[in-house]
Amino acid sequence: MTRAKLIRSLDDILDAAKRLATRRKVVLAPAEQDEGLRSLAEALRRGIVAPVLVGDRNRIVKLARSLRVPLGKMELVDEPDPLRAVQAAVGLCRRGEADILMKGAISTDQVLRAVLDRENGLASGKLLTHVTVFESPDRKRLMFMSDPAVNINPDAGRKIEIIQNAVAAARKLGIARPKIALLAATEKINPKDMPATADAAIITKMYETGQLTGADAAGPFGLDVAVSSFAAECKGISGPVAGKADILICPEINSANIFYKTLVYFAGREMAGVVLGAKAPMVVTSRSDSAATKLYTIALAAVLGGGE
Amino acid sequence: MTRAKLIRSLDDILDAAKRLATRRKVVLAPAEQDEGLRSLAEALRRGIVAPVLVGDRNRIVKLARSLRVPLGKMELVDEPDPLRAVQAAVGLCRRGEADILMKGAISTDQVLRAVLDRENGLASGKLLTHVTVFESPDRKRLMFMSDPAVNINPDAGRKIEIIQNAVAAARKLGIARPKIALLAATEKINPKDMPATADAAIITKMYETGQLTGADAAGPFGLDVAVSSFAAECKGISGPVAGKADILICPEINSANIFYKTLVYFAGREMAGVVLGAKAPMVVTSRSDSAATKLYTIALAAVLGGGE
Repeated sequence: MTRAKLIRSLDDILDAAKRLATRRKVVLAPAEQDEGLRSLAEALRRGIVAPVLVGDRNRIVKLARSLRVPLGKMELVDEPDPLRAVQAAVGLCRRGEADILMKGAISTDQVLRAVLDRENGLASGKLLTHVTVFESPDRKRLMFMSDPAVNINPDAGRKIEIIQNAVAAARKLGIARPKIALLAATEKINPKDMPATADAAIITKMYETGQLTGADAAGPFGLDVAVSSFAAECKGISGPVAGKADILICPEINSANIFYKTLVYFAGREMAGVVLGAKAPMVVTSRSDSAATKLYTIALAAVLGGGE
Repeated sequence: MTRAKLIRSLDDILDAAKRLATRRKVVLAPAEQDEGLRSLAEALRRGIVAPVLVGDRNRIVKLARSLRVPLGKMELVDEPDPLRAVQAAVGLCRRGEADILMKGAISTDQVLRAVLDRENGLASGKLLTHVTVFESPDRKRLMFMSDPAVNINPDAGRKIEIIQNAVAAARKLGIARPKIALLAATEKINPKDMPATADAAIITKMYETGQLTGADAAGPFGLDVAVSSFAAECKGISGPVAGKADILICPEINSANIFYKTLVYFAGREMAGVVLGAKAPMVVTSRSDSAATKLYTIALAAVLGGGE
């Protein structure tokens, strides 16, 4: 495996997607959805991906006209039934005819069901997890956080799977040996009242003893200790991860989701986020995501997907 | 009760503290602590509070000299034993000889134990809760969040007490009828897997039926729906709280603590935060808090404390 070049910013993800030897194929289904069409058109215009649209051809053509989205360079597969459209898109990814699955006019639950289908799905044996990518406080490097959207209350075993997907993503963006912080409200291990601190102890011990490898892990850490060397020093905490974490693992979905949304709504940050663990990365953007976040997300999926 | 004037920013809290008819007395114990002494000296210089120092007189005098903190306008009570110093400070607050208790060179646990002491403490029958104050995304008004520091995993009953302390604080800062959002990762009620969404349903129903009064409550809300009218509209959610929440109640301590620290370390925000529920507000700043945050915290305690 050649070592991936380090990608330091969200804009660098766009550049990396453009530099790929072949354009990744993103299949949007059902494609009769304005924000999906619009963001794929923009990704195409920038040379980031090659779009495939699966859905109701008549409605797609009409919608594209009203949005002034040119369809000339997009493949189009007619499948008016939304659920069958998603299944067809999943089939394209399974057969290697597309690289990335993108949710259109259908609920996330229905997409996940099609992806997890035993016979015709995209299951790879890994846990499906959402990985969010954003820039560090000083904006000099990328950071990863999980899981704000898919896994509700993961135990230590599930957290290890969440970590593995995040580590794979970090490696693809050039971080050879990621630094993982297991977050909680405190650095004290409190197995009775704060299970997240116990999970952190278990997992960091597994990295210490070499049962898990390829990364440095530390925690439980407050977010301050994970991202600020000054805060870590104030609290007397050292080690390779303190103040310099690449990957933040949240205790459960509420804290991860609130973290994500604080970055967007208070810190004014753009993000990129994909669902990993299936045979193809999945793009599940939200209507309220900014246009930039949607574009970064498609580019991130392009960089993470495909065979390279 | 006269209606409090609306305070819109952290700097306005400083001004409000200065405008109080009498300077609030803040008692720092044990006072032989550099950042406590420094921030109280700054608060005194700005005319925000009147400091009282309880602790080892010799060490305090020496420390003040090395920090160039003038002690002339500070009361000084000699009590070399740290635990007894805290107990003496609690006694001053209990007898109304001081208005605000400030943690010095001792652990928060030990301060809380002295405050909760049945015979000689400051218990008022209310739950002790940490309330954090910060500026809204557009910085045009203040918002409140709880509980990032004291209550680990509150059930619905405890959350009501957390809300009551936050509502009391919001009222003192001029928000007559606060809008409360109960946060979770989603707007869907999922009693089986996401207890925070069930707590949100219980509490909002209690406000709807008039069992709880004096505020509007809504949730479960993602943070986006609570603070962004655009996000609320995208998700089809309306009502008085959506996009305009004054008070954010987090599911438990991890999410609240991560929210707090994301505001500080990614959004670059200053904060103010006090522990409420005892007969006097408590200031429990952390060594890594910025000087501005420490000053805003003392000013907030001044505005919330005392008899007015």
